[in-house]
Parts: sequence; structure tokens; C-alpha cells
Amino acid sequence: MENTIIYGKNAVLEALKSRDREFNKILISNNSRSDSKLEKIKELASKHGVIFQFVAKEKLNQLEPEGRHQGVIAQISPVKYVDLDDFIEKHRDSQTSLVVLDGVEDSHNVGAIIRSCVCAGVKGIILPSRRGVLINSTVEKTSAGAINHISIIKVNSLTAAIQKLKENNYWVIASDHHAKDNYYDIDYNMNFVLIMGAEHSGISKSLLKLADFKVKIPMLTNFNSLNVSNAAAIILFEAVRNKRLGAKRK
Amino acid sequence: MENTIIYGKNAVLEALKSRDREFNKILISNNSRSDSKLEKIKELASKHGVIFQFVAKEKLNQLEPEGRHQGVIAQISPVKYVDLDDFIEKHRDSQTSLVVLDGVEDSHNVGAIIRSCVCAGVKGIILPSRRGVLINSTVEKTSAGAINHISIIKVNSLTAAIQKLKENNYWVIASDHHAKDNYYDIDYNMNFVLIMGAEHSGISKSLLKLADFKVKIPMLTNFNSLNVSNAAAIILFEAVRNKRLGAKRK
Repeated sequence: MENTIIYGKNAVLEALKSRDREFNKILISNNSRSDSKLEKIKELASKHGVIFQFVAKEKLNQLEPEGRHQGVIAQISPVKYVDLDDFIEKHRDSQTSLVVLDGVEDSHNVGAIIRSCVCAGVKGIILPSRRGVLINSTVEKTSAGAINHISIIKVNSLTAAIQKLKENNYWVIASDHHAKDNYYDIDYNMNFVLIMGAEHSGISKSLLKLADFKVKIPMLTNFNSLNVSNAAAIILFEAVRNKRLGAKRK
Repeated sequence: MENTIIYGKNAVLEALKSRDREFNKILISNNSRSDSKLEKIKELASKHGVIFQFVAKEKLNQLEPEGRHQGVIAQISPVKYVDLDDFIEKHRDSQTSLVVLDGVEDSHNVGAIIRSCVCAGVKGIILPSRRGVLINSTVEKTSAGAINHISIIKVNSLTAAIQKLKENNYWVIASDHHAKDNYYDIDYNMNFVLIMGAEHSGISKSLLKLADFKVKIPMLTNFNSLNVSNAAAIILFEAVRNKRLGAKRK
């Protein structure tokens, strides 16, 4: 089994809960202060026959030198990527949304976006296989384990993926600060795929052409520069608000 | 002059634009690819008599070992903290909002929140002097320089600060996931201070008692765990939407 490591209490706990990952073992710092999350990790590990070992904190620091492990590291199988066709088929009978990350480069941003997606009921994330970040330990940590509750779809061509979604009744929304429409002007009660662009360059032109809706987030100042994960959260939770309150009043 | 360093193109450019910081010098990697931001940095530095030097990239890597400097580092005076009384006096005649960070510990979160605040027209950030993060190079970088466009207020007692704001016509909103009201149910057309709690423990009880409104962000799933900077962005941009569209329809 090819292994990766994940660290942090939420990341390990959510991976255990999801039952989608194969655990080699879990390492716990032998001077961790116990808390409800750590107890839950030990309980689930015992229940599912996952080995856990108490080790010196220095051992954990070797595996995760930034010291963000919170006393818990798991050696685990990598995230399983999902095929786009399978995803579409699985969700054919329910209103579904996805997010496309067009070259987002910062692992913290990717992790935070995945976390917001899961909170907002988004079912899939599409990443290009050749640009931007793929899933790594930082993404898993920053997602607080949310990555185990969403389909991660890796594709060679974002253009082809978006065209396939369009053919399958998804509307395409692009976040673009040159857009005329505001993000709160559209009705999200539909299947949609939201495209978020790279931190510096935004969405590539070829993808922008495929958008049915281009939306901007209006600012109250000239400082026109939201972090991409914050921008995604703002749009996705407008969609949540919209779904909860019903159709938009025009 | 006591010096700090800031790094990244936006952080350096916005500090130059703001004219609030004293520059010792700017170091630029001698193999940086030029772009509009770097040209603007050189232009403003020349205009304002700030020394800039071209140095080997290794020199920058020594000063900022994580390699996130984008080829530019400035040695600069620290952010000037603003006194709360002065802030209140200065903004007495206009509708004003602030954000209180009650023990937020991650520098990336603090930086991202400051960035969203500036985009959303928030005029001040209140930080406790003894808990959570104070301003450091990571906060400056993550804020993309936004920190130069907002008042940073450091106080010994958040309770006393919030009580003073209440006495001066500010309404207190607390983000609390146990709240009954949704964040989109209240009318933000008022002076307000939004309290965001620490990543793990939330808002302390003594502050929660001072809140006029407690609001939650409703989720579409059971995974109830938004990143604090994303939660702040969602609430602050609901306030922007509200201000742009006028009073809420009840």
C-alpha cells in the first residue's frame, strides 16, 4: 500500500469516520493532553482495528516539521480520486453542485475551499492534473478532514470536464471580478459548477468562455483583492441562503 | 528605528502606497521576472526616496526561509497601533464597523480576515494584547498589504473595549454556532462590531454576554466547521450586500 501522512485531530478523526481510507497506523504523542477528539480517535481506531502507538513528540516533529500536527499523525492510503462520469451518474437524480479550481496554487486555500464546500453541501471538487495543487498533507489538514466527505475529481482537461457537465444539465458560474452581475443576483436553485481562478491570474480565458453566468463580489472599497477561499465561501453561502429561502425575488 | 520585515509584492506595494510606514530599505531578488507590481514598487520607492537593492535570491531566502517572498522583502517600521478612543472619535460621524478577534491563533487566518475586512469596508480590527496572534510578517503577507488600510487596535481587555463601543452607539454581533438567528436575518445598517472567536474554543463567555445579536451560519450538512476567516467573510459580505441593497425586507 502506497502511504501518505495526514496530521491534526480533525484530519485524522474525519478520515477514520469516513471509512474510505486504509490506515497503516496512527501515531499519538505520549504527552498529548487528552480531549474529546483524541478519545474519539482512539475509540474509532480500536473499533475498526487500526493500530495506534504512543510515541515521543520528537518523532511526530520529524514527520511533520512545521509542528502543526496537534499530537496526532496517521499513515494512511491517499485520497481516492473519483471519475467524473461516475460522479455525474451518481448524482443524476438530485440537485448537485461542484467547484472547479482553475490552478489555485496555495495548499491552505485549497484546503479551506474544500472545507467550505462540504459545509455548503457541495458534492465535488474538480482539480486539473497538471496545474495548481493536488491533494497533500497541508490540504488535508487545512480542510479539517472535510476532504473525506466530498468527491475529489482530477481531470486532464478542465474544458472537457466543464463541457461534459454542461451536457449533463449543469449551469456554469464563473467568479470573475470583471463581471457585470453581482453574485447575489443569480438563482442557485439548479445544478451548478462554480469556477474559481488562480490567486494571481484568475480564470483562464478558455474556461471563462464556457460560463453561463459570470459574477463578481462587489467591494465597499477600492482594495479589490479577496483571498480566493474567502471569495468561494461568500458565493457558496449565498447559494446556501438562496436554497434555504427558496427562489430569488426578482 | 525598530524594524520588522514584510515580504511579498502586495505587502510591500500596499505599505509603500499607504505612506504610514517608515522604510529602511527594500531588497529585490536580482533574478526576479519583472511585472507591473514590481515596476510599481520601484517607481514608488524612487518617488518617496526609499532605497532599493538588488540581491541574490539566497539572501531573501535567509530572511524569509519559507520561500513565500516572491522576490521582494522590505525592512520597515512595525504597524502603528491605534488607540480605541481616537478611533471612536475619528469615526463618530459616519456609519462604522469593526471586527474583534477573540483569541484567533493562526496568522494566516488573521491576515485573511484583515484582507476581507478592508474589502468589506470595515474600519478597525481589535486584538487582545495577551492572547492570539499579534501582527507579524505572515499576517502582513496573508493580508496582501490590506493591513495598511485599516486601524489595528490592541487592547488589554476586550470586555472593556466592547463596553466602550456599546456606550458609543455600536451594536455588538457575535458569531456563535449555537445561536438561534441566522447571520442573514439581521440588518447591518448600523454601527456594529462583529466578534469572531478562536479556532477551537469559540468566543469567551464573558464577551458572548455583551452581544446584542448572536448569529450562526447555517450549513447544508452536518459537517459544522467553517474556517474562521471564511466565516468572517460570509458575515461581512452579507453586511455589504445589505448596505448596498438598503434595509432588509422583514
